[in-house]
Amino acid sequence: MSETKTSDKTIFNISKEKNLSDWYSEILKTADLVDLRYNVKGFLVHRPYVMKIIKKIYEIWEGALEEKGHEPVLFPVVIPPENFEMEKEHVEGFTPEVFWVTEAGGDKLTVKLALRPTSETAFYQMYNLWIRSYTDLPLKSYQSCAVYRHETKATKPLVRGREFLWIEAHDAFATEKEARAQVAQDMEITKKVLYDALGIPFIFFKRPSWDKFKGAEETYAADSLMPDGKLLQLPSTHYFAQRFSKPFDIKFEDSDGNKKYVHTTSYGPPIWRTVAALVMVHGDDRGLVLPFAVAPVQVVIVPILYKGKEKAVAEKCKKIVDVLGREGIRVKLDDSDKNPGEKYYYWEMKGVPIRLEIGPRDVSEGVVVAVRRDTGSKEKVKDEKLAERLTEIADDTLKNLRERAEKRMMGSIKKAATLKEIETIVETGIAKVNFCSTDATGEACAEKIKEIGGEVRGTWFGKDDDVNPLGSSPTTNVSRNNDGVNPKGCVVCGKKAKCVVYVGRAY
Amino acid sequence: MSETKTSDKTIFNISKEKNLSDWYSEILKTADLVDLRYNVKGFLVHRPYVMKIIKKIYEIWEGALEEKGHEPVLFPVVIPPENFEMEKEHVEGFTPEVFWVTEAGGDKLTVKLALRPTSETAFYQMYNLWIRSYTDLPLKSYQSCAVYRHETKATKPLVRGREFLWIEAHDAFATEKEARAQVAQDMEITKKVLYDALGIPFIFFKRPSWDKFKGAEETYAADSLMPDGKLLQLPSTHYFAQRFSKPFDIKFEDSDGNKKYVHTTSYGPPIWRTVAALVMVHGDDRGLVLPFAVAPVQVVIVPILYKGKEKAVAEKCKKIVDVLGREGIRVKLDDSDKNPGEKYYYWEMKGVPIRLEIGPRDVSEGVVVAVRRDTGSKEKVKDEKLAERLTEIADDTLKNLRERAEKRMMGSIKKAATLKEIETIVETGIAKVNFCSTDATGEACAEKIKEIGGEVRGTWFGKDDDVNPLGSSPTTNVSRNNDGVNPKGCVVCGKKAKCVVYVGRAY
Repeated sequence: MSETKTSDKTIFNISKEKNLSDWYSEILKTADLVDLRYNVKGFLVHRPYVMKIIKKIYEIWEGALEEKGHEPVLFPVVIPPENFEMEKEHVEGFTPEVFWVTEAGGDKLTVKLALRPTSETAFYQMYNLWIRSYTDLPLKSYQSCAVYRHETKATKPLVRGREFLWIEAHDAFATEKEARAQVAQDMEITKKVLYDALGIPFIFFKRPSWDKFKGAEETYAADSLMPDGKLLQLPSTHYFAQRFSKPFDIKFEDSDGNKKYVHTTSYGPPIWRTVAALVMVHGDDRGLVLPFAVAPVQVVIVPILYKGKEKAVAEKCKKIVDVLGREGIRVKLDDSDKNPGEKYYYWEMKGVPIRLEIGPRDVSEGVVVAVRRDTGSKEKVKDEKLAERLTEIADDTLKNLRERAEKRMMGSIKKAATLKEIETIVETGIAKVNFCSTDATGEACAEKIKEIGGEVRGTWFGKDDDVNPLGSSPTTNVSRNNDGVNPKGCVVCGKKAKCVVYVGRAY
Repeated sequence: MSETKTSDKTIFNISKEKNLSDWYSEILKTADLVDLRYNVKGFLVHRPYVMKIIKKIYEIWEGALEEKGHEPVLFPVVIPPENFEMEKEHVEGFTPEVFWVTEAGGDKLTVKLALRPTSETAFYQMYNLWIRSYTDLPLKSYQSCAVYRHETKATKPLVRGREFLWIEAHDAFATEKEARAQVAQDMEITKKVLYDALGIPFIFFKRPSWDKFKGAEETYAADSLMPDGKLLQLPSTHYFAQRFSKPFDIKFEDSDGNKKYVHTTSYGPPIWRTVAALVMVHGDDRGLVLPFAVAPVQVVIVPILYKGKEKAVAEKCKKIVDVLGREGIRVKLDDSDKNPGEKYYYWEMKGVPIRLEIGPRDVSEGVVVAVRRDTGSKEKVKDEKLAERLTEIADDTLKNLRERAEKRMMGSIKKAATLKEIETIVETGIAKVNFCSTDATGEACAEKIKEIGGEVRGTWFGKDDDVNPLGSSPTTNVSRNNDGVNPKGCVVCGKKAKCVVYVGRAY
């Protein structure tokens, strides 16, 4: 039965492993995710298939945020300069990228307005009005929206654009301790969504002082390894201390009767980049491989028709569509005129997690053939066990995707004692090095590393070699675990190393 | 048991019937729907309670659109002038309201960009690329987004603003017939959402030529009567013929081998105004009255505590939260320290459709007391019947809200034979008049009606007095049903009346 054989052809002539960049461009087009032909540079059109994935990702992330007490809000897209300029580092950092609305109708606006590049300074304007007492705290809000940045770096669809989709959560607390606890909770939320639901591994690095979000006291960012050995920054969470609450005068009356400034944090789950990571991390030479949770089509049914036996097969297919639909599974019956092989290629390329093949023999045996997208493995499943077994296959698939990606990412981390070694390691992964300091004094050494193509991504939050636990300053010597990567000290300057940092190439 | 008595106080000192405008401002603030203090004129902040309602409304409308074959997409917020200027009437109509992005970073953009006031000219740019063959048709896409219009009229929260939330569906067809059928289907979708799910009655009027969407061949718009006797325009659907497909060169090769221009339509469900209509139409002097489908809290439980018997009541409340939660009902247990009366006022004001009161006697009797928000009526419901009965009450409530609103709207329509009569009728409702013409020749008469505060909203689509059925020109004489409203002819000029139109004051 040649029609039921799983395809051993790849639909592309491009190998994902050998040429990720071309493969990525090709799959975005072939799977019809985005269209880059819109006639404004850096802006793209989201096609239905990616919108369906995006809506699911939003749902999962919004759910995880709401479970932790965040409430949905929506602020204006425009931010007046008087807000935007409140925090010096913030405005200096973002100004080079801001789009300005300056005219309406035929007239110049009296004050030009920023298209939000991020909304701290919109939210805080209102937090000043909303927060009066300690009973108003914590205040935890998020919005799902697009933001606008006039990127000068090359744009890459779903990775870097002048308009991109994200969530931004802005939280205010009575104490530093609670704000820092929020940063840790943001990491938990990240794990729940990216790792648990979508199988994407990541490491939270505390970014060096020169690579913080502009205006932040501390920035923690999740990096994930893409198959070309480059790191993609996923959500980041920022502790602002009172850097914004002071200029915005966000004070509350505490239970002790004193007026105090709040401590704020922000957290930015990047919806776009989550899609990009799903595509790059899980995909293969046949196309997309989507986790069950976000697949627009979770199960595709391909009837195997033989002359004279079409009716029984068609009936069974319809029945299974009903059964699975009732279980809340997004199922698609492909009863088009294409031959089964073509259908296999197409739905494999689209990343559908499970394919069901149903032929005359399956009707008489009371089974269906289920084929896993990630491994291509096949099994016969009894009709009455179908929904249950599909859920198990979906779970197994997710586990497999997650383990594969995690093994690759963690296995790519290698110790380096010289710049030369860093250069080699970052070709395919992450270099672990002793480093003088992640405060301003270390920036010159980081520049040297940049010259050979690596970026200092920071200290690994929570790891045994992390001498920068949440809230501490990077002053401790590397003593617990320098495991000889460079006994002489900083990999660049050779001076006493205060920390272990991780270095990679980055998107 | 005074605590269990339904409040007979109103929380406002403002009567909705006597002063809708003040009542509306007050409820938006008291129910914490929006905050108008953001420091850019015409832009507002959406608070969590309204965002939860809005998310549900989006879900319902998107579902109804997808059921009819529309697919989700998302286009850029910016539209280049070369697109925007393609259709003459369109650009002339919208230009006075367009916000322009002219700078990025420190630099002037070489081409300024329009913030989308509506996206026909963004979509059609891509439809030109996407449509090649009759097999690509129909092409039906929608996006959920905010649009931007520099309104010079006074803004009103959720009714008219410089940034507002809506959906826009843009469809392309091979033939005029299919495009016109889409216009009719848009009306069906409108009914399914507004009338069936949310209990908001409306009438689709074919707008006179001078009140069409700019660029449309024909515009049909749903008006709903607000309690102050003014009409609120809800969705509108437009037939464009080939007015856009020609300048955008959107052609397809038909099955006969010939290249033809597509016929397009667009449809705009206004999410903001749907909320405004829910608030104004269903609300009462106690506050919001929300239909079950969109209520952020569908059922609130208020425990009635007596000393020594708290535990049994608390346990029952928790159990019911679990039971209803499992049924997918959004249930909230108010176990705050407020007294029951305060809780009643608060949740009534928030529009929660059903309140459950649970005291010690209800525990021993195995019942709960259910109170309907719309009528205030109470009943005892047996524990084991609870979920089922709540669904019935929800359905009954919706039916009651719908009937009440419909009776009011339809009852407000009165025949007028003179301008003086129109003036009186439009104080509280809709005047029905004979009118010379809804093409350009009638505009002068419409101006006369405007002088006395009325607007000609058009002919009633599909009604027996409608001599403008979908697709016909308004040339027929009023013969079928002029029922003597003005046997002499047009209510203004007295010339031969070609149609019956409806006149009202409008938002």
